[in-house]
Amino acid sequence: MDERENRRIVQRLWDAIDRADLEDAGELLHDDYVLEWPQSRERVIGRENFVAVNKNYPGRWRIEVQKLVASGDDVVTDVILSDGEHTERAVSFFQLSGGKILREVDYWPEPYDAPEWREKWVERM
Amino acid sequence: MDERENRRIVQRLWDAIDRADLEDAGELLHDDYVLEWPQSRERVIGRENFVAVNKNYPGRWRIEVQKLVASGDDVVTDVILSDGEHTERAVSFFQLSGGKILREVDYWPEPYDAPEWREKWVERM
Repeated sequence: MDERENRRIVQRLWDAIDRADLEDAGELLHDDYVLEWPQSRERVIGRENFVAVNKNYPGRWRIEVQKLVASGDDVVTDVILSDGEHTERAVSFFQLSGGKILREVDYWPEPYDAPEWREKWVERM
Repeated sequence: MDERENRRIVQRLWDAIDRADLEDAGELLHDDYVLEWPQSRERVIGRENFVAVNKNYPGRWRIEVQKLVASGDDVVTDVILSDGEHTERAVSFFQLSGGKILREVDYWPEPYDAPEWREKWVERM
């Protein structure tokens, strides 16, 4: 439960994905690694599937880590991914164990139109 | 920067929203409170607007805190909101100052269909 080390490991994961070095990213994962995408009800089990999914992803993503919060075995990141055309936002909850990433849950929030009913109390960014 | 206290304050915020006690929720906010919803590019400035937006929200939300990660002045929560008919997920980044919530950024991830291209490496939840 070394918070600083856990923070470094998750930063290294995003750096490896930014370089499209997926083998290097895979090295940071625990043998029992599980990744969940609750919005699509998908689960990626194990390092091999993680590397395969990312290698087959249609696009070459560059990564900007906006925020990284580490507490005990938990690390949370807020990341912007961009392939030159599209920009995506990922909010990820990581759980670490023994210096490896054991569990990951990713959320992918999409833009939506500001609703009219609340415009009286809200400013536009 | 009392991590345990900050964790308690954010838990109290969600408890107050769960009870629909928005005045109580407002008490936990800093005088310079700002809330951002990046997906809709909206910003709620100050306690009064926070209370007004929530009071006028069409629905009475019950809250289940799934995860709370606190580190220094940062607190992150993963929350399920439910009004009996609909269920929403909120991932929120809080920044605290002097025992009050100074900044909040909320993301609202929505369900989407699992894409076909990756079904070979993915299990369904």
